[in-house]
Amino acid sequence: MRPGIDVECREVGLRDGLQIQTTFFATEGKIKWLTDEVGAGMPEVEACSFVPPKLLPQFADAKEVVAAALKTEGSIISALSPNLRGAQDAFAAGIHKLNYVTSVSESHNMANVRQSVDDSVEGFKRIVEARNTIPGAENVTLATGLSTALGCTIEGQVSEDAVMRLAERFVEAGSTELMVADTVGYANPQQVKSMFKKVIAEFGSTVSIAGHFHDTRGLGLANVFAALEAGCIRFDASLAGLGGCPFAPEATGNIVMEDLVFLLEGAGLKTGVNLDKLVAIRETVEKYLPDETLHGMYAKAGPPKGFVPATNFAAAAE
Amino acid sequence: MRPGIDVECREVGLRDGLQIQTTFFATEGKIKWLTDEVGAGMPEVEACSFVPPKLLPQFADAKEVVAAALKTEGSIISALSPNLRGAQDAFAAGIHKLNYVTSVSESHNMANVRQSVDDSVEGFKRIVEARNTIPGAENVTLATGLSTALGCTIEGQVSEDAVMRLAERFVEAGSTELMVADTVGYANPQQVKSMFKKVIAEFGSTVSIAGHFHDTRGLGLANVFAALEAGCIRFDASLAGLGGCPFAPEATGNIVMEDLVFLLEGAGLKTGVNLDKLVAIRETVEKYLPDETLHGMYAKAGPPKGFVPATNFAAAAE
Repeated sequence: MRPGIDVECREVGLRDGLQIQTTFFATEGKIKWLTDEVGAGMPEVEACSFVPPKLLPQFADAKEVVAAALKTEGSIISALSPNLRGAQDAFAAGIHKLNYVTSVSESHNMANVRQSVDDSVEGFKRIVEARNTIPGAENVTLATGLSTALGCTIEGQVSEDAVMRLAERFVEAGSTELMVADTVGYANPQQVKSMFKKVIAEFGSTVSIAGHFHDTRGLGLANVFAALEAGCIRFDASLAGLGGCPFAPEATGNIVMEDLVFLLEGAGLKTGVNLDKLVAIRETVEKYLPDETLHGMYAKAGPPKGFVPATNFAAAAE
Repeated sequence: MRPGIDVECREVGLRDGLQIQTTFFATEGKIKWLTDEVGAGMPEVEACSFVPPKLLPQFADAKEVVAAALKTEGSIISALSPNLRGAQDAFAAGIHKLNYVTSVSESHNMANVRQSVDDSVEGFKRIVEARNTIPGAENVTLATGLSTALGCTIEGQVSEDAVMRLAERFVEAGSTELMVADTVGYANPQQVKSMFKKVIAEFGSTVSIAGHFHDTRGLGLANVFAALEAGCIRFDASLAGLGGCPFAPEATGNIVMEDLVFLLEGAGLKTGVNLDKLVAIRETVEKYLPDETLHGMYAKAGPPKGFVPATNFAAAAE
């Protein structure tokens, strides 16, 4: 974790937020968003997915976006890839971190990436091998997301044991970060606290643990606080809650980054993220996605009177 | 607390939700809402405010609404009054519980009820005396709300000491329920946990403690979970988040009852409230307030697949 911060936030809007957008978000817009967010102090920005453009035309400019991202300084630039081919492209592009995802529930993994969980784990092993052998890739961090870890739209409840078993397989294979994901917005804070306590007790001393929550049923930030209580200090979110849920058009998807940072900074936890600068980036999203509803309460209501964030930007600038 | 439930929810939409509405919510609509919500199992419904109709025409039908509410069975019917005159009317109407509010911050209390905090405490003492002497009123529960307990739009931060001192004065005066209120939506879950731990440690063995949260900055349900963690088991909320904040037109006010009940039932805590019946009441609000934005994520997204609420309604119906 970057020195001087207590909690590490990752912007996933450019990937998780844009992947369901049918409107192509102009490359220059992505680069402005990303650059401004690095400038706001965001510790990690997931810049794109490395997937075939035929499958997701939104990410046809992945190389260009990553190239621009790597010209910025101070943030981890990551990308997602579901397979070896994409990972190779991502390594070649020079990313700092690769995010790989597998659903804990078998049928969701099949629906999402068209292979069994076993095959996904094998696929990750090939990526580890590629990372270890491709010149220049050896320092890339490999993170694995445990999708549907807190519930599945196809299978319903997902057992903690299943999550722990998949986590163990990924850690053994060489993952150094586990993202426990409430992919479909099913989680309850009580459940989150229990799940994160278990994962952190088992793997927290050897790998990083991150929480990925959706706000589909309104509990996203309650789940963040529950995970914090369990000791989790890494969280995904997207600017303006971009992402949505394809199955519930009116419901938001990812938790809102601005509200997450407000929660953390108000709780006395330094994120290193400047809230004013973060809120200002909404204009870029508005400009390039004029028909999209921007979520987020903090941006609408503004800071409480006398609000003092935990991060001291004046001191940091000296 | 009603037997068989773990957490007591109070619907405040008919009062806190409607008080800022300039559209008069037809009496028949209020009665339908209230009756249906009692039917859904809501442990307490705050039916109205007893205030001069000139000041708040929305509550001109307070007597009629309370009369109808008292014909229902199973829920505590409460009303708010800011002064003795209103309390006398509320006692005469036959309410079960009277809610009285005072802001912890002096200037907010002056702005809200046009008197000092001292005078508000004296006013409460007169209400206690009236309750003890007016025939038929002796069994009315007196609850006191500590407004701006977690922040104030005029004074900014509010000290825990100030909250504890006002709480003590109300308990000494005869209050048997303290509502710790984030009136303006400033609170952070870390702060909530600390505040509720203190209040519960000091007063929890002698009086009931309730949490009243607004979602103005998106942290409403995170604050609920924080209060739960501190031992709070009584929460205010309003159907569809009705309430709003007069200072932030787009921001919601009260936390959404449907999402609160979903959080609690999902956490294994029995509320006694039937979520399906609760969600159905939104139609009534929509009918009588067609121009109002209805908030709430659960109502839009529906239950998770395989969701089993903690309350067993089949068993309760037997």
